Amino acid sequence: MTDSSRPPVCVLGLGLIGGSVLRAVVREGRTAFGYNRSEDGAAAARADGFDADTDLEAVLRRAADEGALIVVSTPATTLDDLLPTVARLAPDCLLTDVVSVKEPVAQAVQRCHPGARYVGGHPMAGTSQSGWAATDPDLFVDAMWMVTTQDDTDPAAWLTVATLARDCGAQVVPAANDAHDRAVAAISHLPHLTAAATAAVGAGESGLALRLAAGSFRDGTRVAGTAPALQRAMLEANRIALLNALSETIDRLVAARDELRDAGTVATLVDDGHRARLAYEEMASTPAPAIADVEPGDDGWAAQMRRQAHLGHTWQR
Amino acid sequence: MTDSSRPPVCVLGLGLIGGSVLRAVVREGRTAFGYNRSEDGAAAARADGFDADTDLEAVLRRAADEGALIVVSTPATTLDDLLPTVARLAPDCLLTDVVSVKEPVAQAVQRCHPGARYVGGHPMAGTSQSGWAATDPDLFVDAMWMVTTQDDTDPAAWLTVATLARDCGAQVVPAANDAHDRAVAAISHLPHLTAAATAAVGAGESGLALRLAAGSFRDGTRVAGTAPALQRAMLEANRIALLNALSETIDRLVAARDELRDAGTVATLVDDGHRARLAYEEMASTPAPAIADVEPGDDGWAAQMRRQAHLGHTWQR
Repeated sequence: MTDSSRPPVCVLGLGLIGGSVLRAVVREGRTAFGYNRSEDGAAAARADGFDADTDLEAVLRRAADEGALIVVSTPATTLDDLLPTVARLAPDCLLTDVVSVKEPVAQAVQRCHPGARYVGGHPMAGTSQSGWAATDPDLFVDAMWMVTTQDDTDPAAWLTVATLARDCGAQVVPAANDAHDRAVAAISHLPHLTAAATAAVGAGESGLALRLAAGSFRDGTRVAGTAPALQRAMLEANRIALLNALSETIDRLVAARDELRDAGTVATLVDDGHRARLAYEEMASTPAPAIADVEPGDDGWAAQMRRQAHLGHTWQR
Repeated sequence: MTDSSRPPVCVLGLGLIGGSVLRAVVREGRTAFGYNRSEDGAAAARADGFDADTDLEAVLRRAADEGALIVVSTPATTLDDLLPTVARLAPDCLLTDVVSVKEPVAQAVQRCHPGARYVGGHPMAGTSQSGWAATDPDLFVDAMWMVTTQDDTDPAAWLTVATLARDCGAQVVPAANDAHDRAVAAISHLPHLTAAATAAVGAGESGLALRLAAGSFRDGTRVAGTAPALQRAMLEANRIALLNALSETIDRLVAARDELRDAGTVATLVDDGHRARLAYEEMASTPAPAIADVEPGDDGWAAQMRRQAHLGHTWQR
């Protein structure tokens, strides 16, 4: 990796994800600094020896001076306020983000900072805690980090963002924004709704039912315990893709209900679910194959990378 | 507890649950012996120092001679073969079972052994492993063990079965059979179907989706990995109650889909699920209050115990 793919890193928002990025890249020896809206968070970061400030304009001017990679890690709802300021003060900086949906962020960038050099990202890492106190330089080690890989993505910019993910210890999953949003609707957002429905039906039954609840209920409803505002922000930002995943889920459950009522069996759904779970366990328990035979900038590199990622391969350079 | 509530224990079926019962009561100093259909299982139990035989008729004659409590821990599908033999050779023995549904078992007893002294039971303990090798005398420690508590349940027989559960380290949850079956449909059987649907939708999306799957998918689909035959036997035996729980789940998901499509929010379902999960976590993290002010045989004792159990209280004598 050349130095051109390792510019200084400017992190906007020092919560769990942004703060952990700052910790991770500093540990790798990179120059990095951050902005946080609240003085508490910035002071906590400074107390741990990091370069953090609450003055957004000063931080962005420094990013522009140093040619930094700007990492947006503030809540999605803040983008329409934040991005015009980035456009004004650091218009030429390469921009990425860590928000859990990608098409809405790309649209916000298009709307608020139309000339931006922007390559989106999404690290798949825990969100049940929050704030600087929860940050961890190991948060992304061996995690999957999606990096936007469209046909018109600039290969040098892509490599710079992918290198950020690699410096955090993650494996890079190249994907188009729409495919990413459909995938996380199915494997990250839908589980919140099925967990919520399962929890509500169980708790609606009786104190007896909750007292009898054991492992299947405990694990199957865990994510329903996430703060509702966090769940809503994440799920509602991915409305269209989530509607599709939810409709397919309803169709499968309705078919199971009909089969149970009419034929006394749940064989189809149980067998499909079992096969799916085994496929997941096999994928989770074996190292991801490395994306091979393609470099950013090769003819058709983005499509070729996406094809390999759809098979479960990751960029590990 | 008097000795009359601690007769010898005769366990029919030495798999995970039955074998663990045998280990637990022998550790408590009780006389206990078992039957297992396969010679392998019986030999494994004998090798560990337990009294186990493959001759069902000899085991049942001994149970009759010793006035043993018979614990049926064979699969539900074997009841129609097993119970007539019990009726013929040990007609007066008190009978209990550990099957995960209660009304169908009570009906099988009524059909095959109409004069039986029978009080059903259901320990809420793990089922992902099986066979004698997986048995553990601690399997039931602090677990919940439902004991059938109908208005016409004989109090002395109830106390004998409840004492078995207590000797295994469990807390006793007194409930009517139909209430139990509704409760486990909601908190034990339904989670298998929502996990299966979530897994199938996630795996159907792409290898990309499974590669991006993290904690919410891992935990939310875990029970879909249980052997399909085990899942089907458990769920299909509780068809009516499961149909109701499944229909309520479908209604909640359809309402969430409509709310997301029409109003852009998932607030209702996420809020309901969050409240439900917090109620469960609070119940799971605090010791169950003890059922108080009622003894088996008191006027209206069964209804009074059920009322307290519906609030989440357990019998801990």
